[in-house]
Amino acid sequence: MQNFTFHNPTRILFGAGQIGGLSREIPQGARVLLTYGGGSIKANGVYDQVRRALEGFDIIEFGGIEPNPLFETLMKGVELARREEVDFLLAVGGGSVLDGTKFMAAAIPWQGGNEWDIVHRRMPPKTALPLGAVLTLPATGSESNSYAVITRAATKEKMSFGSPLLFPRFSVLDPETTFSLPSRQVANGVVDAFAHVAEQYLTYPAGAPLQDRFAEGILRTLVEEGPRTLAEPRDYDARANVMWCATAALNGFIGAGVPQDWATHAIGHELTALHGLDHAQTLAIILPNLLWVQRVPKREKLLQFAERVWDIREGTEGSRIEKGIIATRAFFEAMGSPTHLSAYAVGEDRFGEIVERLQARRALPLGERRDITEEKVLEILALAR
Amino acid sequence: MQNFTFHNPTRILFGAGQIGGLSREIPQGARVLLTYGGGSIKANGVYDQVRRALEGFDIIEFGGIEPNPLFETLMKGVELARREEVDFLLAVGGGSVLDGTKFMAAAIPWQGGNEWDIVHRRMPPKTALPLGAVLTLPATGSESNSYAVITRAATKEKMSFGSPLLFPRFSVLDPETTFSLPSRQVANGVVDAFAHVAEQYLTYPAGAPLQDRFAEGILRTLVEEGPRTLAEPRDYDARANVMWCATAALNGFIGAGVPQDWATHAIGHELTALHGLDHAQTLAIILPNLLWVQRVPKREKLLQFAERVWDIREGTEGSRIEKGIIATRAFFEAMGSPTHLSAYAVGEDRFGEIVERLQARRALPLGERRDITEEKVLEILALAR
Repeated sequence: MQNFTFHNPTRILFGAGQIGGLSREIPQGARVLLTYGGGSIKANGVYDQVRRALEGFDIIEFGGIEPNPLFETLMKGVELARREEVDFLLAVGGGSVLDGTKFMAAAIPWQGGNEWDIVHRRMPPKTALPLGAVLTLPATGSESNSYAVITRAATKEKMSFGSPLLFPRFSVLDPETTFSLPSRQVANGVVDAFAHVAEQYLTYPAGAPLQDRFAEGILRTLVEEGPRTLAEPRDYDARANVMWCATAALNGFIGAGVPQDWATHAIGHELTALHGLDHAQTLAIILPNLLWVQRVPKREKLLQFAERVWDIREGTEGSRIEKGIIATRAFFEAMGSPTHLSAYAVGEDRFGEIVERLQARRALPLGERRDITEEKVLEILALAR
Repeated sequence: MQNFTFHNPTRILFGAGQIGGLSREIPQGARVLLTYGGGSIKANGVYDQVRRALEGFDIIEFGGIEPNPLFETLMKGVELARREEVDFLLAVGGGSVLDGTKFMAAAIPWQGGNEWDIVHRRMPPKTALPLGAVLTLPATGSESNSYAVITRAATKEKMSFGSPLLFPRFSVLDPETTFSLPSRQVANGVVDAFAHVAEQYLTYPAGAPLQDRFAEGILRTLVEEGPRTLAEPRDYDARANVMWCATAALNGFIGAGVPQDWATHAIGHELTALHGLDHAQTLAIILPNLLWVQRVPKREKLLQFAERVWDIREGTEGSRIEKGIIATRAFFEAMGSPTHLSAYAVGEDRFGEIVERLQARRALPLGERRDITEEKVLEILALAR
């Protein structure tokens, strides 16, 4: 096992009705900036629940945070928060709203000049406003980690950053808030959580069997519960289990002490930034092909994955690895997430640009062994056509 | 899944050499009370490593905390800490040293009269001194939770208490500090961690498959790695995995949202308080018999346990349950932990006293369904002869 530091101070309030306890989590007398996205929380009743729970607080609202939240949009919220002298941020939504709010928490008190440097140059904030979250879309794990991904429209850059100051103080996870999600968003959430686990698990053995089993436990549970959420949107336990899987996938626990990949995310971010695909759609396309291209260096873990996640025990090593990858692809497709670029009309002529952008920011080679070169990225994209 | 709150703010510093970073974790200028047990840390070099890492701090020492730490002993440390105006506690040792130090952290600033009330009447402390830990014996999980178990010699009472104020600020887990443990303590640690998982997992299904799989993952890993630590005491990865399993067993994660039992612990605490058995020895004796007596209410989980932890898939339901329990008992025995009271000369004539003491503190009936009555406790003890 590798050495590690694990620290996750976010308080999780999980279950139906937990929004009602919000006021106990926010400092008395706080001026709260309530952030949200496109307004689905107004249609499904979550907005009303939150406003009711916050009676007595000064609330300023900032809605309209888009999927793949834009620096340009968020800076408007930063200006508003500064003008209104806000001292607590409450994000109500999915990963995009949470990530955008994390950026704002760092940017509002920022004294270092251009706020984009927090993301682009990963300049660590020295201070940040405290934030809390009400999660309505299980997917990114942002509700229980200190990372965020922000996009700059002007340059079509989608980049991650993080700081220990950006752990939410608390996150409310009420599975009932997810009952009304469109099936595309449910699929995205399940694929995203699956890919998060894969990035931390499908690498090479590191003498860490507990982390492996936790990872396999999340994957098997997603495979079981994901289709149930599609078939029975109001099945509380299925929703609860997917929600808790998505948090466990990226709260730091399964990644502690083991190598990590994240090449699928790096390539996927370019597809989103350039071609507008949903984040999870890019993962469903890239992950199976990346696993195939990396089947030799990832051999031992792919065999373990085939056996323990997919119950594949028969056949040669090569065929078991292949079957495990095919099962993964079939799972994404069954959740409703296409696994080929052709579904989004992204042609071969666009592949060069992706590699150039990765090169420009010195991201290559990628992967847990830094062996995913320009050539391999092109091979992965070619297989993903 | 049941509603829950999960919050665990302890920072874990895991791996060889992490003791060297201690000074970064303790506030500059703190007057530190360094607590430890019977002196094994002086023999194995951990004491020297800690003192070296703390150069520049004012250090006051309080050694001699015994296994099943005594209120009477700990109050001497409380007096010392008050006299010396200590403002940080650093526990170096196993669960007993950590639990004793947690009591001291609450008792030193206690304004509520008799400090035993913190334990006996579970009066919540309003404040506590900050504490950190260097763990040298993986077992109790105390390094990453807010609970402690304290014994009062005068009344032979062994009782647990807890407070969110008592999470260690940090815990250093260096597997190399455990290389020199006697095999009895290794066995105790593995059995203790196994039993902690069992108390949270072997109850009834609660629609929480992820928590189940995490629990099963810890158990399987203990079954694999426990014997390796005995056979190869300096196998770093085996030590690391057992250490991380013990933390994961009781850091709150696998118990979030599911029913919990804890009857084995309640009965075991009486055996320790009255007859001086090691904590884990009582669990090795009680757990298999409790599972047998409770095989009907625990039926579904025992079948799942037999299949997923012990690979038992053949035979009738009754025989699979029985085989799972037999495998558990055999595992404890193989680790070197006897599973019968006769090994400790505790006779049948002493069983009545155990039940009377549980009754006196209104602890009965026990268990996740409150169905472990006086009669069942006696049946469990009779089977454990």
